[in-house]
Amino acid sequence: MSDPSILSPLPRVMLEPLVRAALLEDLGRAGDITTDAIIPSGMRTQVALVARQNGVVAGLDLAALAFALIDPAIVMETEAPDGSPVRPGQVLARVSGPARGILTAERTALNFLCHLSGVATGTASIVTAIAGSKARVVCTRKTMPGLRAVQKYAVRAGGGSNHRFGLDDAVLIKDNHIAVAGGITPAVKRARAATGHMVKIEVEVDTMSQLEEVMRVGADAVLLDNMGPEMLREAVGMIGGRAIAEASGRINPQTAPAIAQAGVDLISVGWLTHSVAVLDIGMDYEAG
Amino acid sequence: MSDPSILSPLPRVMLEPLVRAALLEDLGRAGDITTDAIIPSGMRTQVALVARQNGVVAGLDLAALAFALIDPAIVMETEAPDGSPVRPGQVLARVSGPARGILTAERTALNFLCHLSGVATGTASIVTAIAGSKARVVCTRKTMPGLRAVQKYAVRAGGGSNHRFGLDDAVLIKDNHIAVAGGITPAVKRARAATGHMVKIEVEVDTMSQLEEVMRVGADAVLLDNMGPEMLREAVGMIGGRAIAEASGRINPQTAPAIAQAGVDLISVGWLTHSVAVLDIGMDYEAG
Amino acid sequence: MSDPSILSPLPRVMLEPLVRAALLEDLGRAGDITTDAIIPSGMRTQVALVARQNGVVAGLDLAALAFALIDPAIVMETEAPDGSPVRPGQVLARVSGPARGILTAERTALNFLCHLSGVATGTASIVTAIAGSKARVVCTRKTMPGLRAVQKYAVRAGGGSNHRFGLDDAVLIKDNHIAVAGGITPAVKRARAATGHMVKIEVEVDTMSQLEEVMRVGADAVLLDNMGPEMLREAVGMIGGRAIAEASGRINPQTAPAIAQAGVDLISVGWLTHSVAVLDIGMDYEAG
Amino acid sequence: MSDPSILSPLPRVMLEPLVRAALLEDLGRAGDITTDAIIPSGMRTQVALVARQNGVVAGLDLAALAFALIDPAIVMETEAPDGSPVRPGQVLARVSGPARGILTAERTALNFLCHLSGVATGTASIVTAIAGSKARVVCTRKTMPGLRAVQKYAVRAGGGSNHRFGLDDAVLIKDNHIAVAGGITPAVKRARAATGHMVKIEVEVDTMSQLEEVMRVGADAVLLDNMGPEMLREAVGMIGGRAIAEASGRINPQTAPAIAQAGVDLISVGWLTHSVAVLDIGMDYEAG
Amino acid sequence: MSDPSILSPLPRVMLEPLVRAALLEDLGRAGDITTDAIIPSGMRTQVALVARQNGVVAGLDLAALAFALIDPAIVMETEAPDGSPVRPGQVLARVSGPARGILTAERTALNFLCHLSGVATGTASIVTAIAGSKARVVCTRKTMPGLRAVQKYAVRAGGGSNHRFGLDDAVLIKDNHIAVAGGITPAVKRARAATGHMVKIEVEVDTMSQLEEVMRVGADAVLLDNMGPEMLREAVGMIGGRAIAEASGRINPQTAPAIAQAGVDLISVGWLTHSVAVLDIGMDYEAG
Amino acid sequence: MSDPSILSPLPRVMLEPLVRAALLEDLGRAGDITTDAIIPSGMRTQVALVARQNGVVAGLDLAALAFALIDPAIVMETEAPDGSPVRPGQVLARVSGPARGILTAERTALNFLCHLSGVATGTASIVTAIAGSKARVVCTRKTMPGLRAVQKYAVRAGGGSNHRFGLDDAVLIKDNHIAVAGGITPAVKRARAATGHMVKIEVEVDTMSQLEEVMRVGADAVLLDNMGPEMLREAVGMIGGRAIAEASGRINPQTAPAIAQAGVDLISVGWLTHSVAVLDIGMDYEAG
Repeated sequence: MSDPSILSPLPRVMLEPLVRAALLEDLGRAGDITTDAIIPSGMRTQVALVARQNGVVAGLDLAALAFALIDPAIVMETEAPDGSPVRPGQVLARVSGPARGILTAERTALNFLCHLSGVATGTASIVTAIAGSKARVVCTRKTMPGLRAVQKYAVRAGGGSNHRFGLDDAVLIKDNHIAVAGGITPAVKRARAATGHMVKIEVEVDTMSQLEEVMRVGADAVLLDNMGPEMLREAVGMIGGRAIAEASGRINPQTAPAIAQAGVDLISVGWLTHSVAVLDIGMDYEAG
Repeated sequence: MSDPSILSPLPRVMLEPLVRAALLEDLGRAGDITTDAIIPSGMRTQVALVARQNGVVAGLDLAALAFALIDPAIVMETEAPDGSPVRPGQVLARVSGPARGILTAERTALNFLCHLSGVATGTASIVTAIAGSKARVVCTRKTMPGLRAVQKYAVRAGGGSNHRFGLDDAVLIKDNHIAVAGGITPAVKRARAATGHMVKIEVEVDTMSQLEEVMRVGADAVLLDNMGPEMLREAVGMIGGRAIAEASGRINPQTAPAIAQAGVDLISVGWLTHSVAVLDIGMDYEAG
Repeated sequence: MSDPSILSPLPRVMLEPLVRAALLEDLGRAGDITTDAIIPSGMRTQVALVARQNGVVAGLDLAALAFALIDPAIVMETEAPDGSPVRPGQVLARVSGPARGILTAERTALNFLCHLSGVATGTASIVTAIAGSKARVVCTRKTMPGLRAVQKYAVRAGGGSNHRFGLDDAVLIKDNHIAVAGGITPAVKRARAATGHMVKIEVEVDTMSQLEEVMRVGADAVLLDNMGPEMLREAVGMIGGRAIAEASGRINPQTAPAIAQAGVDLISVGWLTHSVAVLDIGMDYEAG
Repeated sequence: MSDPSILSPLPRVMLEPLVRAALLEDLGRAGDITTDAIIPSGMRTQVALVARQNGVVAGLDLAALAFALIDPAIVMETEAPDGSPVRPGQVLARVSGPARGILTAERTALNFLCHLSGVATGTASIVTAIAGSKARVVCTRKTMPGLRAVQKYAVRAGGGSNHRFGLDDAVLIKDNHIAVAGGITPAVKRARAATGHMVKIEVEVDTMSQLEEVMRVGADAVLLDNMGPEMLREAVGMIGGRAIAEASGRINPQTAPAIAQAGVDLISVGWLTHSVAVLDIGMDYEAG
Repeated sequence: MSDPSILSPLPRVMLEPLVRAALLEDLGRAGDITTDAIIPSGMRTQVALVARQNGVVAGLDLAALAFALIDPAIVMETEAPDGSPVRPGQVLARVSGPARGILTAERTALNFLCHLSGVATGTASIVTAIAGSKARVVCTRKTMPGLRAVQKYAVRAGGGSNHRFGLDDAVLIKDNHIAVAGGITPAVKRARAATGHMVKIEVEVDTMSQLEEVMRVGADAVLLDNMGPEMLREAVGMIGGRAIAEASGRINPQTAPAIAQAGVDLISVGWLTHSVAVLDIGMDYEAG
Repeated sequence: MSDPSILSPLPRVMLEPLVRAALLEDLGRAGDITTDAIIPSGMRTQVALVARQNGVVAGLDLAALAFALIDPAIVMETEAPDGSPVRPGQVLARVSGPARGILTAERTALNFLCHLSGVATGTASIVTAIAGSKARVVCTRKTMPGLRAVQKYAVRAGGGSNHRFGLDDAVLIKDNHIAVAGGITPAVKRARAATGHMVKIEVEVDTMSQLEEVMRVGADAVLLDNMGPEMLREAVGMIGGRAIAEASGRINPQTAPAIAQAGVDLISVGWLTHSVAVLDIGMDYEAG
């Protein structure tokens, strides 16, 4: 989890298009035919968003926006802000107002909240597992299409940090680039010549001899791919603080501690944004 | 898995906005600065999309579109179409053309393909687990915001079937509706009066006495929520073929067989679209 | 007309994109050059939206949104809500606030309101014409491109019910499907095998022998196309309550009563959404 | 009807967003479940778009785009281009290619084609009714939201001409402007001072004394609202060729001839774009 | 500059899409990482938008919207409205509220404000330079893609007037049209036959013999392209008030006076919207 | 100018939305009424895009897309690719095909091409002016709203390099951040703690004592704002290669050489993207 007083929310102008699209995807062309048929239009209700598992919260702004865009008369009051650890039964927020709107927005609000809290919870589980090491947990570009900005935000809510947001904000030279370009050295040299002064360069390596070549030509960071703890320790030694050392390759809460102990600066985890399970959060009826 | 000759692809007009948005999300404002710096513009290459795990394929049309929208000169030839079972090392498709475009589109193509193949694989694992029973596997509205249509397609690719696509295509009366409306009977009666002749009505129940009430007032389907195999068997008996019997509630490949044996018509699994892991698929260099 | 206390409004998130697009279509690149040139910016006014014909109202939310999106200081107070019958001279709503904004939004507000009230009025005219029969009036997919959701809402406001909203929410097997598929029986069997448990199946027939085939293979509903009252009565008899009987084919307020008397459950009327005339509603100056 | 060799098509970049939106509106989230279930994917077919009434064609480019956007392998060959008069049974175009795509796009293609041909047919009916007079038929801003550009195109296809396309391309001073501004003379003077040199000014009048005031202050055109033939003749006399004389107010094919005989330059008809009935056009199976 | 009490603002519905897109372009996928890292979330501040040069203001509504869309708690109070002349050090507006939002929106707000004030200032410089002549200053279609409506507004704010807004609101027959069509006379005749009664026709000419041909066939306006003052005076004489005389061709504040003295009605200046420099406006810290 | 064989084009998926929007902005609701009226639909033509000034080309892909989106039958062949220096009269590209489409797309194509070539030309003028120094020319975030990606591309075409693309790809601590945060040291420390490992940190300073503080706390780059050559030389000495030295503040081709001689690494020029004049390029008729 991250310190909620430090975590910066994304501005509404970034979230609103996502929530509008999600609501329209669910409303289709007829709207919520169940609620419209059953619930009288004047009726008001109060519900609670309640955690059913241990985890870390993320996505309350998106949930609040789902309710507000359906009916601005709905009020949501947060009890456990994004970045908070929660336990089963804990109320994250209370939502009150017109019953129809609350029921109509429920699924969209929960879909954002459960997924992003799942990302934050997964991140926190690795952050906790490697506590005591100097390594930071970072995510990758292996994200759900359309949701990258909010998934990366959820990683921050879970106490992690972010790697590249896209193809354009840093250079990462990977195996296929090296294969096509004909080697690490020409690849790095071309990248250094072509990119701006605020752009860092990282190179992916699989072997110690590749790493040696990277250290000779120079780079801001090295991605040590699919190496075991032993080999990682050796690699960190060869780098000797002259570049950031990042470990990657199917890392999960079980394997992370040994990798962190190898002395790397960063642990990069694709699982956080492509395969993490939701945090189970429900919407419970409190009062009509 | 589903029979690939029967599975219907979604028309390109539905897929294109998703792929364009995903590419722009990754390209940002500067494009692929790594590839542009390193790979000469005239160079051509051939790569293969290769499964690294056992699973079922889904999403090849989205991957092909990612390549084509970056550069129409890229050609993708499918070897294992959507719905096919694949084993580690098996080539799903070969991609050839300008090297820059292939490297630039790689991550977007794989993000769609790995996630949707994960959904199809998860679906197939449950379909296989309950083989021999009469139950069909269906998904829910617990989907990734923005990806519902393609996730539901992937469920079909995995041999599953689809439940509601949104709030507007069928009536599903859930616990909160019943709580706010003051009971099952008035809820069903209002729904029947208000909805069109092509719309089916389903009611969620937790207990046998609720089920009894549903059977008295009548419904097209009953959602039996969080019941164990024993209780499900009893419920199926009470329904006696007068409505579709659907089991739901944290069902996974382990718990599914016992539930299917209880005689239900449908097994509804949220995990398929909210928490399933990716199928690991890589892009391997074949020739420059 | 429908009971205004029962009619459910569409959520603003569904209406707003339509109204924004319509306003921008009218404002072009220079805005309202007439009003801007003539009306001083501080001036306020009050106008009334007034029916000039007998009819049923629909679309007031869209009209209100047109005014609000041009200037949030404009207030619209409804006197005759959607679903109400109105007579010539009756005030539907009063609009007051900055004069410029009211004049600028006038045409967009009236274009939605007059067309949708026309749809509601047309629907009510058939509902009234067949009063006493058991038949319900339904609309089709023959709608104005882009306006389907609001046109179908207007049908509900007029006391009608909705058929399919699109290609995806029910199966309707029509003449061309049967021609291409090689017969009714294989068509229905394939549809039943391929579609989900919440999806109903309807088949269009032109002749009694086709109907016989449908009843043998089974369907949820039958569309009896272009049959006269006599033949419809015979068809209803053959169906015998085992499926919903729907009549269609150039039905209008004149021909509807005889068709309803034939005992069908539904009368399907494309005219409601593709050819109905506007309800004449004007905006009258009340006070400066 | 207009001379098809003279009528200019709208560029595809203007039509494509409309057709994409209409297809997505119909496809929803699951696509065409009927066709996908019933029609094998390899099957090809040929159909004809056939007029079932006398009328004038408009909208073939939109229909062609609907087929092409669903499947670029579909070929449409036009037999009676936009602006052509057609008789019952006449083939407008032949469509051949993959059967699935043709059936999926059918309704969207016909919705555009039938409505716009209805607009063209309605226009031609008035153009024909007033043949021999010098008056031209023009449409108004009373259009279907979102469809203004294509409706106005259809008016041209029917032999009519276009009035303003929006609030920004000409000044039209109407009753409410005059009421709020405090008179015709100040309104016209402010408009003349504020608008550019390529913008024309028109004023709406109800009475001869208003017309007198307009002629004193000067205008490019006068809208003679709701005047009978007698009064129109008098008005035309007073204008004496110093401004364009336009008649408006619930004009239809029956009332148009007498109005045209009164000597006006233009007849403005809202009915063409807000209330005209579709031209009945069907899609007939020709060969599998 | 223009009289601020007369200048009409564009409605928010026209400005909002531009400002949303500009904010998203700047926020990217991670938002304002500098401000989020440095500025505590509760902190408030007050800043002033201050002119650093002499000029005319335009674009304050866009700036205000940039702040409001980032955080509705930010309040902007205008001191010198659009159309006002300002001097170095003069405060145009004060902005107060949450410090984070103000810093995040700063660049987007200033990008609109500095550019549009540059356009207004450039316009005013020519208006001032030709004061005493009867000529009005107009802009062209040589605008920044996507910004035409607001650039043309800024020209009005600077005291100028607008020429065509697009290809569709007036006929302008240029050299390439004449070349392709085979002469001025057939070009004008075809245009007059094809266009509506509210559309004006202008013809571009380079020589006196071309002008003679235009005057013979007749036009509402003549664009006298790249003529010196001498030749312009002769052209104005030949036109003799029978058409609007417009001078164009690389006109700037230096060359404008002599051209205006030649007696033309309009001076058309592409420089205003394609090459004008920004007005330097800064955001100064006032209080924390 | 840049070496055209090295300059990477932006993928079409990034350019297409810009060109579509620009075309629609120009076409309005009626399309190109001049061309449609005058030019017969079957006529073909060939034109050349010709430089009228010395400069550097950028934007040909956008121009080509403008023609292709209006009519795919139009072919454009490039003679002087983006990044090439050109002289008056030199042909950049030849365009041939249907005359209507070429004339309709002309202005949109030229608006992109002239502006972006202006940016490239301005960049090249500074690059040339400082040749022999080690400094690189970079642009800023002071861009035209909506055009940032293509303007930054044009800077690269002119031989420059890019600074930040937005608020999210690097930290730049400016005067207002320092004022609100209470000093340089806390600002840098917070930024270092909060941002990811691929993100660089730059600080803006006005004085030598501020620079001293930055060097103590450490940063990747320093922005030396509004310093004269003398002071810049002193600052470069104090930095001593421990950070990138960037000069900024109203730099233009005249002042740039002295600043470059001061030994800075980068010269940052807002003028390139907010105030540069177009490169004059025309479209000349070659053959009908």
